[in-house]
Amino acid sequence: MPLYYEKKHQVQFYEVDITSQLTLSSLLNLVIAASGEHLEEIGVSSEELISRHLGWVVTQYHMSIKKMPEKGQTIYIKTAAMAYNRYFCYRSYWLYNEDHEELIEINSVWIMLDLNTRKMVPSDPEIMLKTGAEEIRRPQKFPRIKLPKEQLVADKSYFVEYFNIDENEHVSNAHYFDWMISSLPLSFIKSNHIKSLDIKYEHEILYHDSPKSYVHFNQENNRSYHKLANGNLTAAECVIQW
Amino acid sequence: MPLYYEKKHQVQFYEVDITSQLTLSSLLNLVIAASGEHLEEIGVSSEELISRHLGWVVTQYHMSIKKMPEKGQTIYIKTAAMAYNRYFCYRSYWLYNEDHEELIEINSVWIMLDLNTRKMVPSDPEIMLKTGAEEIRRPQKFPRIKLPKEQLVADKSYFVEYFNIDENEHVSNAHYFDWMISSLPLSFIKSNHIKSLDIKYEHEILYHDSPKSYVHFNQENNRSYHKLANGNLTAAECVIQW
Repeated sequence: MPLYYEKKHQVQFYEVDITSQLTLSSLLNLVIAASGEHLEEIGVSSEELISRHLGWVVTQYHMSIKKMPEKGQTIYIKTAAMAYNRYFCYRSYWLYNEDHEELIEINSVWIMLDLNTRKMVPSDPEIMLKTGAEEIRRPQKFPRIKLPKEQLVADKSYFVEYFNIDENEHVSNAHYFDWMISSLPLSFIKSNHIKSLDIKYEHEILYHDSPKSYVHFNQENNRSYHKLANGNLTAAECVIQW
Repeated sequence: MPLYYEKKHQVQFYEVDITSQLTLSSLLNLVIAASGEHLEEIGVSSEELISRHLGWVVTQYHMSIKKMPEKGQTIYIKTAAMAYNRYFCYRSYWLYNEDHEELIEINSVWIMLDLNTRKMVPSDPEIMLKTGAEEIRRPQKFPRIKLPKEQLVADKSYFVEYFNIDENEHVSNAHYFDWMISSLPLSFIKSNHIKSLDIKYEHEILYHDSPKSYVHFNQENNRSYHKLANGNLTAAECVIQW
């Protein structure tokens, strides 16, 4: 049985955007902080993993957003590691309002990395046992992210500064959303809502890199397609249903 | 007698920089959130002020930093409006660790703005009475910020994007620190600590502006001097004692 963890949070003024709604980057920071506390609670702290040269790396998120929380709102963040197979661990997050109505569901795929070799290592059964995640044979299916490559337009270049990097000396992938969303007109951001979002992470972005944000908006299906590229390497691909 | 407000906070991984210490921008966000809660508690919410077309605007901070809080650390944030005169209100903030040792003291100067005319209005005695601030005749003295203008070097230009602006459609002045600190080498940031800091805010920065960060480091007194300029207008001037 998966072990659930829940925490209460009040949305702060610095976690919202111009529309007073929680930003995607703050949303990810909040849920990642909840998983950190959860893992700590069940005795799998990141410090302990680091001492074994191991680290969790997220590869994909699928988000269903009924309603983005707003400034001042009290929300509940719930999380559990739901399932795992030889290489992948599947963790879910739910955000609720005070009336226990679900606002957001996020499903994610994680791998375990050997921090010395930077290579994937198999799921540690002992760790997975502690989380209560169910062992499964096949990978879980996530929506396939398919970008219309020939229609993507290079929109903006960024230069990674001190304030973009975290303790691991790379850009926290929560912030990729800032660079992607900024490629859409402000008037569009103000008057549209995200219904669902899929993002896949590939290569990390380091200090003083110059990532480029590519975008295409398809008016027929109301989807925006995003790619963050770092030179020839793809840092992330994302599809947003508005 | 000033009325004090105190809150507990655990420093999150997304509030720290590469050295695992709280960033200046997160520090300001945390203390401003504490004053918002404080004002709410004593019945002077910003919503009520907005209904009267009034808003608080900070003009200056003086910070003394004994030790920056670190990731995971539990801190206490205390604040009070200490004094006011005809136009200025003086608010202080203190950060403590769990052993009640003071880590940081911040003194700040606030004015009240008529949001329609964008002009300063006199301190409202009724509001000030609620805060318990002491009425004083003369302005309080803050360290004078004097930049070596001829030695300042234009370092970096920024372009204000969606993720830089807040609900008021301007750049939150907490984030000015990010742009200022980024003008110093990463090796310097990693191996030095801020002892004190003075910043004065002048003009706001809006969406799609292109502010420039100017810097000069004086090795003799271990001070860095910073200016953020937006075209011909000075957005902020800052002196940091390292």
